[in-house]
Amino acid sequence: MLCAEEEIRMTDYSAGCAYMDGSFVPIAEAKISVLDWGVVRSDCTYDVAHVWQRRFFRLDKHLDRFLRGVEKLRMRLPFERERLEAVLHECVVRTGLDDAYVSMTCTRGRPPAGSRDPRLARNTFYCFAVPFVWLATPEQQAAGLHLHVSSIPRIGAGSVDPTVKNYHWLDMEMSLFEAYEHDANFTVLKDGEGNITEGPGYNLFALRNGTWTTPARGVLEGISRQTVLDLCGELNVRAAAGTLSEAALRQAEEIILTSTAGGVMPVTRLDGKPVGDGTPGPEGTRLRQLYWQKHSAPGWSTLVRGAQP
Amino acid sequence: MLCAEEEIRMTDYSAGCAYMDGSFVPIAEAKISVLDWGVVRSDCTYDVAHVWQRRFFRLDKHLDRFLRGVEKLRMRLPFERERLEAVLHECVVRTGLDDAYVSMTCTRGRPPAGSRDPRLARNTFYCFAVPFVWLATPEQQAAGLHLHVSSIPRIGAGSVDPTVKNYHWLDMEMSLFEAYEHDANFTVLKDGEGNITEGPGYNLFALRNGTWTTPARGVLEGISRQTVLDLCGELNVRAAAGTLSEAALRQAEEIILTSTAGGVMPVTRLDGKPVGDGTPGPEGTRLRQLYWQKHSAPGWSTLVRGAQP
Repeated sequence: MLCAEEEIRMTDYSAGCAYMDGSFVPIAEAKISVLDWGVVRSDCTYDVAHVWQRRFFRLDKHLDRFLRGVEKLRMRLPFERERLEAVLHECVVRTGLDDAYVSMTCTRGRPPAGSRDPRLARNTFYCFAVPFVWLATPEQQAAGLHLHVSSIPRIGAGSVDPTVKNYHWLDMEMSLFEAYEHDANFTVLKDGEGNITEGPGYNLFALRNGTWTTPARGVLEGISRQTVLDLCGELNVRAAAGTLSEAALRQAEEIILTSTAGGVMPVTRLDGKPVGDGTPGPEGTRLRQLYWQKHSAPGWSTLVRGAQP
Repeated sequence: MLCAEEEIRMTDYSAGCAYMDGSFVPIAEAKISVLDWGVVRSDCTYDVAHVWQRRFFRLDKHLDRFLRGVEKLRMRLPFERERLEAVLHECVVRTGLDDAYVSMTCTRGRPPAGSRDPRLARNTFYCFAVPFVWLATPEQQAAGLHLHVSSIPRIGAGSVDPTVKNYHWLDMEMSLFEAYEHDANFTVLKDGEGNITEGPGYNLFALRNGTWTTPARGVLEGISRQTVLDLCGELNVRAAAGTLSEAALRQAEEIILTSTAGGVMPVTRLDGKPVGDGTPGPEGTRLRQLYWQKHSAPGWSTLVRGAQP
């Protein structure tokens, strides 16, 4: 489509295919200048969609969010939404992958030489498809995850807007080290008022008295989070975004984490104590099963263009 | 020194020389993988020293801070301090620049395939020398800068330790856009309690009743900031790190910004109102002159190895 078929056949994209500076390249060659403000100021936004069995899952919602983020950061993409979508499809097709993790990033780029004015910068866009990433493997999910409530507060929503998906993760990275020291492999951070927010790459839901609650503010408005809210609607299960205190989390009957990189993942231990009976609960399991069923349901996914159904 | 002289003569490093993956390359070729956690999690620390007339200014203090930051983030450099220093010198020598901006970064790198555990990551180190960067040119400094007090709070020190020099700048980037809308070209952010902190790439000092105050907490402990404190000691001028409220800033007789990228820079307008009489004040000017004099004074600087004095 975008370059000669022969070139594609002769290039090994199996580890991943990126689109950078207007060309498709193997992922190992996808590099960005160390002077780009996406690197030296983390001045960028990104999004990650996924492909499952050759179908994009809710790609439109990811594109909506990404384009909103680009606008909020006052950046501009090199092309319109339609072309962006075509490039994402093409990256996947070139890898030949059935299940892929598809990332897109827009950075500030760099202002002209001698200037430090971000308004003058030519923004950088790149995207790539790589093999599907599991935040927790299916085996880990079957056993359940161990979660730690971090002592490190999440970066305030007033400082960095969490609804603009961003790479400001040092708080979450350091809280991961803290989690390991508490024999946990997952972490969740609180806001300045001590309420639960999110973890590195995922939202959280807690079930109590038949109602799922997910933090309303100070978090990324995750597409998987929205999917769980939608599935609860289908199942006639009560679920809402609201305030989730640490105390309420510790009284939860079930806890799940939601992420594009893994779906609906049950937490079975919270700071060393079992959640419910210490095994993945029935309500979370039901949501997890329905989440994966939707990947082939009409209206929820799109066949990768050029892929065989 | 580190590779054949001939190769060096044949390569154009005049725009900058980087050291990446164990090799020296022209700055235009200095690129980092888009999968490095330094990019996708801004999980990294850095430092910037400068060379003026072929002499590094207080390089030891920059190295001390950088090595402390690397340790605090639980990373490891590929070599010891002595070799790090030699590589920085070599980058400068290859550019042939008299005045240079010398940056060094250590990122998390990437964990092995299939893992998301930062403890297993092989960290990435790179550094580069480029022509000296002016946050404000000498001409702008002579006229004085226009500063805006941002409505966007600085990322909390409890979330991301500001003493570990980092690229979490989205709050500062967005506050720059806000400053432009207020006819200012520089911005300073407040903390959660409304006290003054810092701006993108610089610390701040305010003079009132014969005493300079620079914010003590929630800021990078800048080397230029420390230099101003040291120079005040020499001059018998009172100066200290402490709490600086927004009200106190607005009553200041003089304001200066301090940065490796520009030194001591006078602010002459604060949110549209003149600071003092609206021209660079005598105390700030004295510090600025002494700051540049120290660049050739014994004990304050080191000749670039291999450069002609």
